Amino acid sequence: MYSDVPWRLIRSLSRKKERDRTGLTVAEGPSVVLAAVEAGVELRLVVFDREFADSKKAHAIRTALDEHGYACRVFVVSNEFYNKMSATRTPQGVLSLLRFPFRRSRGMPGDTWAHALDVVGVDIQDPGNVGTLIRTGASAGASSVIICGQSADPFSPKAIRASAGAVFNTRVVYEADCTGLFREMADSGRLIYKATPRNGIRPWEADFRSPCAVVLGNEARGLSKEILEGPGEWVTIPMPGGVESLNVAMACTALLYEAVRQRTAGNA
Amino acid sequence: MYSDVPWRLIRSLSRKKERDRTGLTVAEGPSVVLAAVEAGVELRLVVFDREFADSKKAHAIRTALDEHGYACRVFVVSNEFYNKMSATRTPQGVLSLLRFPFRRSRGMPGDTWAHALDVVGVDIQDPGNVGTLIRTGASAGASSVIICGQSADPFSPKAIRASAGAVFNTRVVYEADCTGLFREMADSGRLIYKATPRNGIRPWEADFRSPCAVVLGNEARGLSKEILEGPGEWVTIPMPGGVESLNVAMACTALLYEAVRQRTAGNA
Repeated sequence: MYSDVPWRLIRSLSRKKERDRTGLTVAEGPSVVLAAVEAGVELRLVVFDREFADSKKAHAIRTALDEHGYACRVFVVSNEFYNKMSATRTPQGVLSLLRFPFRRSRGMPGDTWAHALDVVGVDIQDPGNVGTLIRTGASAGASSVIICGQSADPFSPKAIRASAGAVFNTRVVYEADCTGLFREMADSGRLIYKATPRNGIRPWEADFRSPCAVVLGNEARGLSKEILEGPGEWVTIPMPGGVESLNVAMACTALLYEAVRQRTAGNA
Repeated sequence: MYSDVPWRLIRSLSRKKERDRTGLTVAEGPSVVLAAVEAGVELRLVVFDREFADSKKAHAIRTALDEHGYACRVFVVSNEFYNKMSATRTPQGVLSLLRFPFRRSRGMPGDTWAHALDVVGVDIQDPGNVGTLIRTGASAGASSVIICGQSADPFSPKAIRASAGAVFNTRVVYEADCTGLFREMADSGRLIYKATPRNGIRPWEADFRSPCAVVLGNEARGLSKEILEGPGEWVTIPMPGGVESLNVAMACTALLYEAVRQRTAGNA
């Protein structure tokens, strides 16, 4: 029976090349798998390790699979066999094989805002940061999270995990051509706010009520000269404590929640 | 010469009991060690692995040690020997042994704000989250970051690393007695804003201009009933995207940056 589990395939999906070739990826961990089931994305199979299979969370996943009409197989394998497939250092006992880009069975959730609020991550190297951008975007009701340039793959198992499943409930797009993207946004009248460590306006001076995009750059180098000189305005998160120490996910949170405030609070 | 490196001691400091017994802890990674040197905390020794020792960053650390008048020894050891001491999964080639609580040679940085802005983390289990709270607090100019109850140790190597060195530049306090802390804060007229997933006021309805504390609870369970029913008010970060998915560090960023806005932006 173990021989039915395509463990070589599953293991190979830690590599982008294999994901792109097969159109498949892996979601691991109880809450992430549950989020995939509840979003109704296309699920090929689920694997539990023996220890996890008896847990309440495993029961919740089985119930959700039934409720959402999934007929996919659920394999229960030994912990050793499971760990051979897992890409995490501390395997969490449950993974699933999914088709991507994700299509929810009931379509994407409706727009939160009357005007677009996009998040753009450019050259974000760390899959964890890519996932966290998606997570923040989902909380704030972003219209899309656009992962751009030389960024880590938003559909990798690591990014999916870091998104805490938010990747299944948000429009996530990968776009190689940053310059084209920004030109198109500017042409369509979208305001573009580019995060820079200095010399920008303060977040509350930006007009986040209009259709707009919040742009964050590489963890170490920030945004490229070309992008900085292109369309849009600079925005700088103040560091009153004197240490320049927010990471890209925290910067994204600070900017998006200023947008949520402006869009929710009536007159600022 | 390797025999001079107290590697057993260094390795033992991944355990809280040993840190408390010796009053020593370990900071690992180039930027974290550099932050410790620049803050002027009490440094016992520095260890480079051979590969790191030739890097620009190693040179920067040696220069900073000289500039700040440190006469502590810098050991260069083989990568294998270094890895025996390192507590990280991907050793970064440089660590240092420090006394804690940290005392900066030039005293703590001056207050950023005329009125106190404290961060309180209650029962924060993950050392990474404790470190990130400290990092956010430092960016926003928090007066103190108070780590409270059954939280992870803010002076552990993991928390120090996650703080990106901000722990050396911020007042960080560990306080076991949460109830006493909140009573004292309330008695001294401090406003207490407790983060809850629902039923609280919105962040921009809070008065963060007055002396206040922002309180965040355990990653899974949030704040205890006792604390929720105690002094202070509830504050809820809206999730317009419909997914309740901010982690504790992101929640802290959203709240603290609303405080920065209120304290910076003139009339809101």
